[in-house]
Amino acid sequence: MELVVINGPNLGFLGQRQPEIYGTEGMDALPGLVERLLGEDAGRIRLTLFQSNSEGALIDRLEEAWKIKSDGIVLNAGAYTHTSLALADCLAWTGLPCVEVHLSNVHARQSAMRHTSLIARHCIGAIAGFGIMSYALAVQALWQRLAVQP
Amino acid sequence: MELVVINGPNLGFLGQRQPEIYGTEGMDALPGLVERLLGEDAGRIRLTLFQSNSEGALIDRLEEAWKIKSDGIVLNAGAYTHTSLALADCLAWTGLPCVEVHLSNVHARQSAMRHTSLIARHCIGAIAGFGIMSYALAVQALWQRLAVQP
Amino acid sequence: MELVVINGPNLGFLGQRQPEIYGTEGMDALPGLVERLLGEDAGRIRLTLFQSNSEGALIDRLEEAWKIKSDGIVLNAGAYTHTSLALADCLAWTGLPCVEVHLSNVHARQSAMRHTSLIARHCIGAIAGFGIMSYALAVQALWQRLAVQP
Amino acid sequence: MELVVINGPNLGFLGQRQPEIYGTEGMDALPGLVERLLGEDAGRIRLTLFQSNSEGALIDRLEEAWKIKSDGIVLNAGAYTHTSLALADCLAWTGLPCVEVHLSNVHARQSAMRHTSLIARHCIGAIAGFGIMSYALAVQALWQRLAVQP
Amino acid sequence: MELVVINGPNLGFLGQRQPEIYGTEGMDALPGLVERLLGEDAGRIRLTLFQSNSEGALIDRLEEAWKIKSDGIVLNAGAYTHTSLALADCLAWTGLPCVEVHLSNVHARQSAMRHTSLIARHCIGAIAGFGIMSYALAVQALWQRLAVQP
Amino acid sequence: MELVVINGPNLGFLGQRQPEIYGTEGMDALPGLVERLLGEDAGRIRLTLFQSNSEGALIDRLEEAWKIKSDGIVLNAGAYTHTSLALADCLAWTGLPCVEVHLSNVHARQSAMRHTSLIARHCIGAIAGFGIMSYALAVQALWQRLAVQP
Amino acid sequence: MELVVINGPNLGFLGQRQPEIYGTEGMDALPGLVERLLGEDAGRIRLTLFQSNSEGALIDRLEEAWKIKSDGIVLNAGAYTHTSLALADCLAWTGLPCVEVHLSNVHARQSAMRHTSLIARHCIGAIAGFGIMSYALAVQALWQRLAVQP
Amino acid sequence: MELVVINGPNLGFLGQRQPEIYGTEGMDALPGLVERLLGEDAGRIRLTLFQSNSEGALIDRLEEAWKIKSDGIVLNAGAYTHTSLALADCLAWTGLPCVEVHLSNVHARQSAMRHTSLIARHCIGAIAGFGIMSYALAVQALWQRLAVQP
Amino acid sequence: MELVVINGPNLGFLGQRQPEIYGTEGMDALPGLVERLLGEDAGRIRLTLFQSNSEGALIDRLEEAWKIKSDGIVLNAGAYTHTSLALADCLAWTGLPCVEVHLSNVHARQSAMRHTSLIARHCIGAIAGFGIMSYALAVQALWQRLAVQP
Amino acid sequence: MELVVINGPNLGFLGQRQPEIYGTEGMDALPGLVERLLGEDAGRIRLTLFQSNSEGALIDRLEEAWKIKSDGIVLNAGAYTHTSLALADCLAWTGLPCVEVHLSNVHARQSAMRHTSLIARHCIGAIAGFGIMSYALAVQALWQRLAVQP
Amino acid sequence: MELVVINGPNLGFLGQRQPEIYGTEGMDALPGLVERLLGEDAGRIRLTLFQSNSEGALIDRLEEAWKIKSDGIVLNAGAYTHTSLALADCLAWTGLPCVEVHLSNVHARQSAMRHTSLIARHCIGAIAGFGIMSYALAVQALWQRLAVQP
Amino acid sequence: MELVVINGPNLGFLGQRQPEIYGTEGMDALPGLVERLLGEDAGRIRLTLFQSNSEGALIDRLEEAWKIKSDGIVLNAGAYTHTSLALADCLAWTGLPCVEVHLSNVHARQSAMRHTSLIARHCIGAIAGFGIMSYALAVQALWQRLAVQP
Repeated sequence: MELVVINGPNLGFLGQRQPEIYGTEGMDALPGLVERLLGEDAGRIRLTLFQSNSEGALIDRLEEAWKIKSDGIVLNAGAYTHTSLALADCLAWTGLPCVEVHLSNVHARQSAMRHTSLIARHCIGAIAGFGIMSYALAVQALWQRLAVQP
Repeated sequence: MELVVINGPNLGFLGQRQPEIYGTEGMDALPGLVERLLGEDAGRIRLTLFQSNSEGALIDRLEEAWKIKSDGIVLNAGAYTHTSLALADCLAWTGLPCVEVHLSNVHARQSAMRHTSLIARHCIGAIAGFGIMSYALAVQALWQRLAVQP
Repeated sequence: MELVVINGPNLGFLGQRQPEIYGTEGMDALPGLVERLLGEDAGRIRLTLFQSNSEGALIDRLEEAWKIKSDGIVLNAGAYTHTSLALADCLAWTGLPCVEVHLSNVHARQSAMRHTSLIARHCIGAIAGFGIMSYALAVQALWQRLAVQP
Repeated sequence: MELVVINGPNLGFLGQRQPEIYGTEGMDALPGLVERLLGEDAGRIRLTLFQSNSEGALIDRLEEAWKIKSDGIVLNAGAYTHTSLALADCLAWTGLPCVEVHLSNVHARQSAMRHTSLIARHCIGAIAGFGIMSYALAVQALWQRLAVQP
Repeated sequence: MELVVINGPNLGFLGQRQPEIYGTEGMDALPGLVERLLGEDAGRIRLTLFQSNSEGALIDRLEEAWKIKSDGIVLNAGAYTHTSLALADCLAWTGLPCVEVHLSNVHARQSAMRHTSLIARHCIGAIAGFGIMSYALAVQALWQRLAVQP
Repeated sequence: MELVVINGPNLGFLGQRQPEIYGTEGMDALPGLVERLLGEDAGRIRLTLFQSNSEGALIDRLEEAWKIKSDGIVLNAGAYTHTSLALADCLAWTGLPCVEVHLSNVHARQSAMRHTSLIARHCIGAIAGFGIMSYALAVQALWQRLAVQP
Repeated sequence: MELVVINGPNLGFLGQRQPEIYGTEGMDALPGLVERLLGEDAGRIRLTLFQSNSEGALIDRLEEAWKIKSDGIVLNAGAYTHTSLALADCLAWTGLPCVEVHLSNVHARQSAMRHTSLIARHCIGAIAGFGIMSYALAVQALWQRLAVQP
Repeated sequence: MELVVINGPNLGFLGQRQPEIYGTEGMDALPGLVERLLGEDAGRIRLTLFQSNSEGALIDRLEEAWKIKSDGIVLNAGAYTHTSLALADCLAWTGLPCVEVHLSNVHARQSAMRHTSLIARHCIGAIAGFGIMSYALAVQALWQRLAVQP
Repeated sequence: MELVVINGPNLGFLGQRQPEIYGTEGMDALPGLVERLLGEDAGRIRLTLFQSNSEGALIDRLEEAWKIKSDGIVLNAGAYTHTSLALADCLAWTGLPCVEVHLSNVHARQSAMRHTSLIARHCIGAIAGFGIMSYALAVQALWQRLAVQP
Repeated sequence: MELVVINGPNLGFLGQRQPEIYGTEGMDALPGLVERLLGEDAGRIRLTLFQSNSEGALIDRLEEAWKIKSDGIVLNAGAYTHTSLALADCLAWTGLPCVEVHLSNVHARQSAMRHTSLIARHCIGAIAGFGIMSYALAVQALWQRLAVQP
Repeated sequence: MELVVINGPNLGFLGQRQPEIYGTEGMDALPGLVERLLGEDAGRIRLTLFQSNSEGALIDRLEEAWKIKSDGIVLNAGAYTHTSLALADCLAWTGLPCVEVHLSNVHARQSAMRHTSLIARHCIGAIAGFGIMSYALAVQALWQRLAVQP
Repeated sequence: MELVVINGPNLGFLGQRQPEIYGTEGMDALPGLVERLLGEDAGRIRLTLFQSNSEGALIDRLEEAWKIKSDGIVLNAGAYTHTSLALADCLAWTGLPCVEVHLSNVHARQSAMRHTSLIARHCIGAIAGFGIMSYALAVQALWQRLAVQP
């Protein structure tokens, strides 16, 4: 099963940026966490990581996933979660199974602007608040949904 | 580790209600799913299930969890997610580690009223969209957070 | 045909409360009014009355009506009409034929908060403004819909 | 007792328009339904039917009812329910006993614009959701209010 | 100087309707009031009165005033003041000098809907609150503006 | 193919009103423009022109088109575009293929009230900003849709 | 009859400020205009003029008018019309007959903030759009209301 | 004089919950504070304490107070202050003299949701910000109002 | 202990204004009420009264209290409660212990504008609805807070 | 005449994406449609096609069109229609004649977010709802405006 | 060049108030800062300082600047920036070149009320966030605009 | 001291675009203006200019400034000021001292959308309205803040 893990703006320096808050673990820790959660099933999942600060490049990458028939998407769209109708449209028409993830519990933030996810409507589920473990849980959820109970 | 799984209004008939949509699996399937995800770690977790249609009874149950020092809460507050400031206040002052769960991807629903979670501010994370598996993923997330990487 | 007449908060003292406004007639006048409107058809309808100030108890009662397969509901949810998403959810999934009733013409009240009925979406119709006669008209409407022109 | 049944815009083709939804019964079925509900009391009620797509003509008709001292109004103002402040003003100053009716449960419609009835404030009650039976129930309600329990 | 006094919906029965509030004076009292205010200048003003409950007929009448080059308009649009964008458009393109009048102080009413005048933008002034005297004051204002200090 | 071109309020004096802005061309220029765009295909289209300032008369005309089974509608509802829920309802139930047109680019106007078209939901398309050519383009679009690529 | 003409902020330099727009006529022109409108009745009216840029001073002046039992108020509160709840409260409790005036047609201004008059609720009427003549018309209206038709 | 002190949700553990913020004083400190404020007058007041997390139970308790003709209510409705229209309705119809109290200055909180008290409209006064002393001040206020200056 | 009692706009004529509503008791009754509530403790409190209709003068007075190190403030800001951000800023930076008071239960008024207190955020508490007794209760509350339980 | 046809996000796979809805015709069908509509005039128009998912790249392309003095723009900005103030600014300052196009009737979509076009203010017109024919109609409209009736 | 530096409410104690936040530098430091920034050009600028807590007094001072033909204004209106329409009107009609200044970056504050500057529309520019240096930068900006590049 | 001057969308053609409004001076005039304002201090500042129409590229550039430890940022984000939550997030986490600049007084523009700066919260100050001089003033402000009074 091939999954694409897509990170949006300001997520390129995880592990380096503000380590006192986010720790020193970057996205390269994800395979280890996935293995911890899934055990040997992890070997049957191929993860491709992608990050861009550009809204257009994220749409390009989703379209490519559609063309090459990837099995699912784990998407942390960062701030574009709340502002990018174009990204939402792309999820809608490509129809790829997608799980929305966030490092922090985004629904708990004070700013009202952060309470609306434009992309949620086109995702099968959402996981937020568990740091990089959010991604691993999303991989597990997709594995259960797509492989174990298809 | 003792976790209380609390279900709010309209969640008492899972497995019986609308089986063509939600399947015939009820909350009694949760232990099996937890075992599937956590393997033998599941043996170290004691799950207590509670359901009530009454806002007050849910608050009573949270207060009890605080008194007996439960380790964490998995909470699907149903419609009270969006209307119960009192439940949110209770999560705030008891300070129990809580993961908000939903069967469906609630953030994706059309009704604007469903887009605001009053309880999110007082939860460490949220998982939505995976049916009863949402609860199991929440148990795993709490396990990872509280036991593996405390 | 079995119908459950459910009254929500502040409707327990009809006939005693503010008799100068509402008269001295309580819910026990309903059978007489039904008989006046339906004549001998009234004999084929069994009315069960229920009242509670508790949102949860109202949901419990609706769930019971669903379990015992009642034919229809006449519901005056009082103030919960405007605030209880949980009650609305219950009407939605139980799918019981329900007529929303109000003693006064609630849509005519000044307060904007009274202009939105959360439960309307899940009712087949609404009758407001005729005092306890509203309930009798609702019984007649259900009778016509369910028995005469099913 | 003389009642005027007033229909507003898009209500001129009941029975012909979309028969697969609304059936083939038009307003000419009303007397029969009234007789079914009221039995011989129906003989003491004179119904006058009026329909117009024009906001001004509806006001003209209400003013005429006031001049000739009709006993009551059954009013389905269609879309003008939500947009015509002028019609509402007319109900206010003529002071005729009026029951607002709708074929469908208008309060249940998705569009927020349909949730506010400008005319409700000047009606004694409202009945919605029962097709042409809504009109008959309104006649019964007026009969009970004006003749039986004046 | 020829002025057209245009009255909108629900203004056809001034003097007959609710005499305990509005008195028994109708629009036919206007010439007398104008004479009281303007003295002999009143002889140089020709007033044409028009009333309709129909939005379209009011626009038709304004268009006619434009065609026959009337000097000015005194307009009490009643409820259409607040809802008729079409009437406002007509005032805009015909460009006739218009004074908006109201019997009561409409800006003082509780309903927020009454606080916005769609036609104000296309009027040179507004006079409200003085009963039929509002019309006479408007005639005087137009006379002063158009004839005395052109 | 028979098309009805319906103009709403304030569109009766095109060509005479404000010629410095709108030019001296009135609706009678439409057949010429249609011929310019469609060449000989124009001969197979019968255009009927209708204009009224009255909301009710516009609905009457649409109902007539439905009764006589016209093939399509070109509709410039003027200000009623933004205020007439009744007109929108009529388009909905008659189900006639309709193209919404406007002389100017209405979506570009400052007033927020002009940004919502109540009738758009029931039209197959919209063309705005090209003066009377907007109507001709709409005829061409309907011709392509209904005759060339049905 | 004693009337107090009260001008609020930015009205102290009428006649000097922007003469190309407002002309060179200041408040000292008011007695002449009143005489023009009322003829010899003008001799029975004593006008006191007051202006201040201070919200507090305007309230002080109204309180003084109440203490000395002035007969009426002509009030142009300038921008305080839209922002001063305190001034509105003062009009409410003193209960003096007051006419709201404005130089320009304030209801026609683009800014939404200018569409709400906090003081309107406590005035018997409003006159706007006629420059200093607005004040004279207000004096005439008060004269008619208080002296001629008390 | 018999007063009922009613506490709503999350107020059952005062003195135990977050003692570093709220101190170790619970509701049992109230009689002492009342005595401190009222001296020997305190002996003429009987206080009944009631607490529930359930909206319905609070309404039940108010209805009981009405039935047994209690003299007044001191009510801290907690979060229901802002969400319970049903509780507000109950205060309205029972008509008991009620003082709204809050431990903290609720009007000072950031959340806009906390700025609206649905129950205020049916209370004679409100006291907030003084901890348990708020209740004592409310008792004193009721004593002054009902006994000293009735 | 020195407390400054500050009254804002429209509070200068208590006792004279509308005695049928507010009684004939003015602010000079306050010392007597304080003595009634506090007994001999009243002798240790020096009250200074200040009233102004001017927003600026109220800020000046608060600044003076800060300069001379007054112990606390009892503030009825009248309508400025809802409109004066400047007064709120002054309370914020001077940091004087302040209790907000109102004669009537201001949170119960219909107007939405009256529901937001800009100054509440900078006050330790609020007391409303008890007439001049509100001030006396505020003095007592400050005495308890500052002297008895500092 | 040189026209640039610019497509925004999610428009790169027309003809391949969802062919059951949008058909198999892609943008390469445009020249044929233009020829069908314009006949030999089509030979005098040079169309350049451009598509990008990136907001910045669309602005870059518009700037280039301005530099090389293209005659006009046909712009389907996709979701950026509703979110890109930057794109709107670019249309404003470059001042190129632009027609806004959409495949579907975007004004008819449920989502309120789709009802506001930020770019409309800077376009001469808009055409929506006719699939790829929308572009061809836009080319014809520009041709008529710029070449035939300049 | 004569510039008036006007400070509004709560700005009279700069240097004394909260020195731990704002430092001990008051407005008397401004000349030194201006000299630091402008060098010898500073000698050609005469600064007049004015402060008042009163909205009216600030308007009075602006009117005086207009009368004596001051060259420009540096205005920190404090909280009146957000609430004083009257001050904004004064800037509009006097037409003096004005730069809006703030000590802190006011646009960054949480409160939405602080995000709207009523006076901005009538200022040539705004400088915020640099403490008293904001004023000096404003003086420099006015000097460059009025003297160097007039 | 190294400062990066970052320009967002539509700022690439300053000096060429609309010279009648903005003059012929482009960003290359900035060094000269900085020298004019700072004299020889200008020699100790190294300015790097960057412009892009792409939101992503602007974030990339800010991240680079963070990596190479630039001393400060002068940022004119153009329309992204109001729409780019992603850019705001980047300023937040990189924590670089940033001054927001605008050519025109953006807070004075009519469009409400322009009144909210998403990036303001993460800037130390803002300067708007002085054309390219805004940038030079920002450089001076940063110089004063970072070098002179660090």
